Amino acid sequence: MGLKVLLTGGAGLVGSSVTRRLLDTGSEVFCADDLTLGTLRHVEEFETESGFEFERWDVSRHGWHAPLRGRSFDLLVHAAANSDISLGHGRPEEDARRTFTTTFECLLAARDLRIPSFLFCSTSAVYGSEPVLPTPELTPGLHPVSIYGAGKLASEAFISAFVENYGINAWVYRFGNVVGKRLTHGVIFDFIGKLRQNPAELQVLGDGRQTKTYVDVEDCVSGMLHAFEKSPPGKDHAERFQVFNLSTEGTTSVRQIAEETVAVVTGGKARIRYGTDPIGWVGDVPRTRLSVDKIGELGWRPTLDSTAAVFQAIRDFYEWSK
Amino acid sequence: MGLKVLLTGGAGLVGSSVTRRLLDTGSEVFCADDLTLGTLRHVEEFETESGFEFERWDVSRHGWHAPLRGRSFDLLVHAAANSDISLGHGRPEEDARRTFTTTFECLLAARDLRIPSFLFCSTSAVYGSEPVLPTPELTPGLHPVSIYGAGKLASEAFISAFVENYGINAWVYRFGNVVGKRLTHGVIFDFIGKLRQNPAELQVLGDGRQTKTYVDVEDCVSGMLHAFEKSPPGKDHAERFQVFNLSTEGTTSVRQIAEETVAVVTGGKARIRYGTDPIGWVGDVPRTRLSVDKIGELGWRPTLDSTAAVFQAIRDFYEWSK
Repeated sequence: MGLKVLLTGGAGLVGSSVTRRLLDTGSEVFCADDLTLGTLRHVEEFETESGFEFERWDVSRHGWHAPLRGRSFDLLVHAAANSDISLGHGRPEEDARRTFTTTFECLLAARDLRIPSFLFCSTSAVYGSEPVLPTPELTPGLHPVSIYGAGKLASEAFISAFVENYGINAWVYRFGNVVGKRLTHGVIFDFIGKLRQNPAELQVLGDGRQTKTYVDVEDCVSGMLHAFEKSPPGKDHAERFQVFNLSTEGTTSVRQIAEETVAVVTGGKARIRYGTDPIGWVGDVPRTRLSVDKIGELGWRPTLDSTAAVFQAIRDFYEWSK
Repeated sequence: MGLKVLLTGGAGLVGSSVTRRLLDTGSEVFCADDLTLGTLRHVEEFETESGFEFERWDVSRHGWHAPLRGRSFDLLVHAAANSDISLGHGRPEEDARRTFTTTFECLLAARDLRIPSFLFCSTSAVYGSEPVLPTPELTPGLHPVSIYGAGKLASEAFISAFVENYGINAWVYRFGNVVGKRLTHGVIFDFIGKLRQNPAELQVLGDGRQTKTYVDVEDCVSGMLHAFEKSPPGKDHAERFQVFNLSTEGTTSVRQIAEETVAVVTGGKARIRYGTDPIGWVGDVPRTRLSVDKIGELGWRPTLDSTAAVFQAIRDFYEWSK
């Protein structure tokens, strides 16, 4: 595509796949990541490639973008956040800083560096605990129950206002649970970590009956770039602040994930012990399913369904993290 | 009511009327205000009354509530914000701090001081530029266009998550344009200030055709306390995070306000000059009208309609500010 891209969170799951895709299609990527969740291993394959730059920057810091003044970017992709939802309850200040303040500071960067397009990694967690299923983008009442969901909805609110105030165009992607080889957190990450500690038993938080929508990170990235290309901004606010659910149509249960992980890691030998709560942690949403009709109308389809994405990620992450 | 109330923004338009009402009904009020928009004159009538305390505190500061540890409050009413919407465009950082960060820090205060109930002064600006009119609380797509509206929606998002995470119960009031004697900003405040400077002419920002919903501050306060009393929290998140539009049913145009202000201040002698833009400033929403059916079902009605509230505020503020 030949774009100059400023990317935050580039050493994370989504950011590293965004980088791979952009470099492969002729774009340049300037990546900022503070390596809290992301790791250098996720970006080391890019380091020798022309068009790739990396800085270990905390983009929640006011004025982080000052060294970039005078440089030109076509696009800011903001993927930095604390995407490990379960951690928010114990430290909401830290979570708000990493998920909300990063966005606010990136918006100031886009305004000051005159970057015309802003792509934002949001989440189905903005919909809160009991939305209609499958949930469309224009669902009434956005009442998040996790600190993470709050930080993302707060981010969306300021993106919407910056679109109006400073001429930025925005593409907001509300992801399902994104999975892939370079996991940094989440249920598969946790289960494999636990089984490596104790191959005889897997203790599951909650009763395992939660069913959620999962999407492969490569599909996720293709969907982001597809919507960016196929849905250019219009004149009105609603055509310049565009929100897309980005996931698969189906869902996968925690029980399916537990059983497949036990099969892959221990050959089915570990015993699975479930808890009794219907949720895994405070702020967990036990059932998520997204309507992906809007992005579908732009001609995008995921290549893997929810469960196929999960099962592939279990294998890929298990190998990658050996 | 005999409540112990922690109130922020108590020297502002809404906060000072909340204080008056609470003291009159036997409650105690601990008021924190940094006097950026609010003024000491708004609270001096309370200073000799038992049950009133005042501290000049900036509640966006992390840990502002530390001196209150060990004290007990029934209720936190968070009215502090930069409610002068037109200022956000030029200084979004300042606006985000005063409208969003204050809320986040007040939520930490409510959690740490174990204050069970949180009343929040939100705004119709969360609905953005083109909502259905009259706008119900559960309108799809909250896409604010002002920095102020973004700060309030971001606040609501974190209130929603704190309700889930830390056992707080919340009442969120989305106000129309609140008017009354103790104005600190806004169209009436501006028009009267301009006419005092130049009694021969009133220059109006925008074409004056904006029509918005106005509500008298005394009605506003009665509505807040009415919903708090008549709609106790339930068990589920939706019954513990309660959102109410709070305004009148009708609307008033900027032209009506200009003409009445000129009549009151200059006896109709000033010439009114309108601009050509359909909005008064970046982020202005030219047409607002709220559905107030939800709070109406609790038995609350405003005593003044939109235009009566505006006309009374013109007279009252003009006398008060002489």
